[in-house]
Amino acid sequence: MISVHNEPQPTDLGDVRVANRAVVLRHVRVHAPCSRADIAARTGLNKATVSSLVSELIERRLVRETGLTENRIGRPATMLVLDGEPYAAVGMEIRADELVVVAVDLAGNRLLTWRRAFTPTDSPTDTVRVLATLARRAVARIVEQDRTVLGLTVGVPGLVDTTGAVPLATSLGWRDVALAAELRAALGDPEPGYPVSVDNEANLAALAEYRHGRHAGTPDLVHLTGGTGVGAGVISAGRLLRGGRGLAGEIGHLPLDPGGPVCACGRAGCVEAFVGLPAVARRLLPDTAEEGPVTDYLPELDRIQALARQGDPRVRAGLTEVGRRLGHAVSLVVNLVDPEVVLVGGHFAALSTWLLPPARQELAARAIAPDAGGLRLDASVLGATATALGGATAALAAIESGRLPAR
Amino acid sequence: MISVHNEPQPTDLGDVRVANRAVVLRHVRVHAPCSRADIAARTGLNKATVSSLVSELIERRLVRETGLTENRIGRPATMLVLDGEPYAAVGMEIRADELVVVAVDLAGNRLLTWRRAFTPTDSPTDTVRVLATLARRAVARIVEQDRTVLGLTVGVPGLVDTTGAVPLATSLGWRDVALAAELRAALGDPEPGYPVSVDNEANLAALAEYRHGRHAGTPDLVHLTGGTGVGAGVISAGRLLRGGRGLAGEIGHLPLDPGGPVCACGRAGCVEAFVGLPAVARRLLPDTAEEGPVTDYLPELDRIQALARQGDPRVRAGLTEVGRRLGHAVSLVVNLVDPEVVLVGGHFAALSTWLLPPARQELAARAIAPDAGGLRLDASVLGATATALGGATAALAAIESGRLPAR
Repeated sequence: MISVHNEPQPTDLGDVRVANRAVVLRHVRVHAPCSRADIAARTGLNKATVSSLVSELIERRLVRETGLTENRIGRPATMLVLDGEPYAAVGMEIRADELVVVAVDLAGNRLLTWRRAFTPTDSPTDTVRVLATLARRAVARIVEQDRTVLGLTVGVPGLVDTTGAVPLATSLGWRDVALAAELRAALGDPEPGYPVSVDNEANLAALAEYRHGRHAGTPDLVHLTGGTGVGAGVISAGRLLRGGRGLAGEIGHLPLDPGGPVCACGRAGCVEAFVGLPAVARRLLPDTAEEGPVTDYLPELDRIQALARQGDPRVRAGLTEVGRRLGHAVSLVVNLVDPEVVLVGGHFAALSTWLLPPARQELAARAIAPDAGGLRLDASVLGATATALGGATAALAAIESGRLPAR
Repeated sequence: MISVHNEPQPTDLGDVRVANRAVVLRHVRVHAPCSRADIAARTGLNKATVSSLVSELIERRLVRETGLTENRIGRPATMLVLDGEPYAAVGMEIRADELVVVAVDLAGNRLLTWRRAFTPTDSPTDTVRVLATLARRAVARIVEQDRTVLGLTVGVPGLVDTTGAVPLATSLGWRDVALAAELRAALGDPEPGYPVSVDNEANLAALAEYRHGRHAGTPDLVHLTGGTGVGAGVISAGRLLRGGRGLAGEIGHLPLDPGGPVCACGRAGCVEAFVGLPAVARRLLPDTAEEGPVTDYLPELDRIQALARQGDPRVRAGLTEVGRRLGHAVSLVVNLVDPEVVLVGGHFAALSTWLLPPARQELAARAIAPDAGGLRLDASVLGATATALGGATAALAAIESGRLPAR
């Protein structure tokens, strides 16, 4: 197959070392415990290069030795595993009803997971202030543990451009918020100490799937976020699909049926108007509306699950219909992007027992590729903190691409 | 922004030379005529590396000197341009009504453009035989000119998997045709002399746009093919978006309206059922159907253009409606993939005067990104041989990525 490259970049020996460092780091992450000889044998790098890189990685505490092992042919070898204990990254998410903070070390171990109730205010500035307070607390906690923070990435349920600004986030009522810049300012410009970036919630959730999910490592993978908004994070050939303005994956307002219900965006029959959590709650629990506007839908979700388990025919029928619409939405992504796996999160995951069978049927009928190109449609197992976890993962990208942390 | 890499590859000095060779070659292609000093200054490679690479490229006749120029500060320098005259690549396309052959040299100059009437037969084997005859003739012509053929790529209006097989090509009536393998056999296994590959028509047309089109070099670009079938070739961050099975870009059977006309695929209201050429001809020229099945739609296209120019109200109204549906279809790609530019080919380009204004309106209304993310929707200027040109361009990819032609 052909691959087009836009701007080939000149390479020098420094780049080679960075690239090879990334190869070694990744090999240890995936195959640990492993010996220097294993790495040389499996990566094709020569032993001298490997041991020079490994010494450097040990010196910077990105990799550590676990002592000898005898369980092998030939003389015992010193085994290596990821260390990265002195390093951590922070991921955050702004949701319609809560703020989430997750920190992981380089090996992906969770250092903290905080969730804090939050009501979107009309003033993004207030949100930034709360966010900065949480971030400072998380960073302080990490520093107390003698760890260096490598980066902080915030996920937002809306459009995020390449500067980390948010042109539009409907569920937050935001327009043109320079989030990355404002957060950096509120944190007293921590860069270059640790870079602060902002990304779309679905992109970060896809990143978390790609690294920590049940189909981790699948190069063509989509994560569909479920909640007030519905978004797609697309990983294609191992890269996040961003688009020219970083606005790719906006599936929430694709029309499924021009005769469908009116959407919050003003259009008719959008994906969100059929399968977004508010639409599902309204449809399956007609009395919900009477209780006034709902931001935190957890009680509704519990009731729907309970009724479905009891076999309530109306709720079951409603879920089947929602599942069909979900399958229709997924078929749009499948025909255009051809992933190997689509993972659904949020309320789609919570209700997957009832949503996925009809969704798979509808998908098979609508996908142009025979057998939907062998696509697998599954529920995500990452839970409500997927996006924040993806943010922390994203903040480790520089190290994983072979660059060394600042001293 | 974050970019995820799946498998970082170990790099060695050979790779570095290949990468830097690609940089020099690209610089000459884009900035010729230029001197060795220009290249060093603009690419950041040191002068010794540049002159060593340039000597090699001159020796292999990929680059040539044009003699001195005085029009510069400092002492006159020897200017360089792409040579590549001894090398050529062949691109072919199988269309519902013709076979197309294009050959270009490394500089992108057309060496030949052949179009040959063709009616899809029930037997792909026959098609392969005709294709092979044409290919052999083109290769012979190129060899007569003392050129080496670097590769041959065939575009097909259908699904093409990563092996170059065609699981489905509706407009050809094909299912599970091992096209690349059969063509190689019919050509007497020309590899490694020149590799034979097969790709989707829209992918190759997008590649031609990316290299030769009016928005050449735009890293996030989509080409929408117009004809019996409608397909999208997506270039994202300078790379062809292929998907897990190489089946990405199948926009033709996305539903625009469940209440719409029945499509050849059996579904209702597909993009092709609204804006595909047969649908457009049927809608604007109701008498067409009576003349029996139409494969070559050129006369119909001429009549539609003539009537539209005369201001025929029914045809004008019909074109406006088709334009709206086209804009709707484009909005699906825009919301999911976020390109900077979408170029429409085939009958969409031929009728662009009347289709694009309503299409742009509809797109603006349906794109979730404000102002459709600044997207530009234009007609392609590459004409009917875009896919074949893209095939030839694709066949040059190995050289352009810095590998040297086999001796």
